[in-house]
Amino acid sequence: MSGGKHLAKGSTKPILPDDGVLRIYSMRFCPYAQRAHLVLSVKQVPHHSIYINLTEKPEWLVEVSPLTKVPALELVSEPGQPTLIESLIIAEYLDEKYPQNPLLPKDPLRRALDKILIERFGAVTGAYAKIVFSDAGTDDLWQALDIFEAELAKRGTQYFGGDKPGFVDYMIWPWFERLPVLKFLVKENYDLDEKRFVKLSKWIALLIDDAAVKSFYVTPEQHIEFWRTRKAGKANYDLLA
Amino acid sequence: MSGGKHLAKGSTKPILPDDGVLRIYSMRFCPYAQRAHLVLSVKQVPHHSIYINLTEKPEWLVEVSPLTKVPALELVSEPGQPTLIESLIIAEYLDEKYPQNPLLPKDPLRRALDKILIERFGAVTGAYAKIVFSDAGTDDLWQALDIFEAELAKRGTQYFGGDKPGFVDYMIWPWFERLPVLKFLVKENYDLDEKRFVKLSKWIALLIDDAAVKSFYVTPEQHIEFWRTRKAGKANYDLLA
Repeated sequence: MSGGKHLAKGSTKPILPDDGVLRIYSMRFCPYAQRAHLVLSVKQVPHHSIYINLTEKPEWLVEVSPLTKVPALELVSEPGQPTLIESLIIAEYLDEKYPQNPLLPKDPLRRALDKILIERFGAVTGAYAKIVFSDAGTDDLWQALDIFEAELAKRGTQYFGGDKPGFVDYMIWPWFERLPVLKFLVKENYDLDEKRFVKLSKWIALLIDDAAVKSFYVTPEQHIEFWRTRKAGKANYDLLA
Repeated sequence: MSGGKHLAKGSTKPILPDDGVLRIYSMRFCPYAQRAHLVLSVKQVPHHSIYINLTEKPEWLVEVSPLTKVPALELVSEPGQPTLIESLIIAEYLDEKYPQNPLLPKDPLRRALDKILIERFGAVTGAYAKIVFSDAGTDDLWQALDIFEAELAKRGTQYFGGDKPGFVDYMIWPWFERLPVLKFLVKENYDLDEKRFVKLSKWIALLIDDAAVKSFYVTPEQHIEFWRTRKAGKANYDLLA
């Protein structure tokens, strides 16, 4: 509803139709926001996307997202029009509320094991952040990814979700889409070692072809360009708008 | 199965009966482990408690909890005897697996709102940790607790869970049980201001009388004594054993 443009300080709160349709407050290059978009896409839930300039946040954002976080999902058809935050909570809410194309397993143990795996992915996102924000090396990243290579082998399936992508696949995908950014940021060879990560390499190739992933996909060149502007202190949020 | 004593480096892995009963690896004064114990108590799920000396962890702990974390819940009757970690994941697993005395609401929105509230409790646990580990002041703690005072008012119930304690109540309780520790650690007046926190003060009084809370309760004097030994570099894990 902002034409893909990111609304900034001084902007007017967008006036949306009173149509009861979900509103997602997002940033086009945010991996956490992408999690919510992926689930909305898998579930084919109609929604309005409102993109936010995170460097200069609009004054009105606090009205819909009290901690001014994105992603934030505004449930305009619920009493009191509550807003949900935290990407994993939003994703699980959507999975429970919209039963079509279920993502998390129904079995409590399998649900718990999937959630633990996503929790352990924190080591990947942490290592990734240290590379891009603190110029750390890539060793910790590859070590953290070893867990996921081993898990695919243990599960014996193409996807973490089985014969199609599930909750784990979509929750971790955004960081794999951004791996090429490392080529721009890190001097050493950034590439995922296809021998060390045989199964993950195949998994990446499959995910790139997934319909939901495609619906929100950003090319390596675009990710790198966004990072170039961000590192230069002038993040070009509207690169794709 | 360790008589309440905390097993340390050099200990033998306890030999437990082949009875299919859940095994919880825990530390008697750990607020995160307490979350799991509270849910086990509410659900009246039989379990063996194995207490771990976190300063000198047993070499065998890695076999049951690969990251040597507690709490860890070993599901000995499941194929492969998997172990669950992360207190909230363990608690939600138990709530789903053992439907008696349900804790989380069934409604996806109410579940999500409860999970966001627990996520926001991170500001309380963070402020608490800064006080006890870094001698920070108490201002951030009280500010973080304002959210919870307001939330009880908004919900209009005695408990976060309604007319009896629910998931939120038990997940946040351990830090309220430990508030008196601040009296020992902080020079300024540590007490919860009963005027600022009218509803939380009543809630604390109610929770202390709750059967599940009582089953794992540690008195202020005992918490303070544990902290005294911990601050002195010789944590007395077996204070209650």
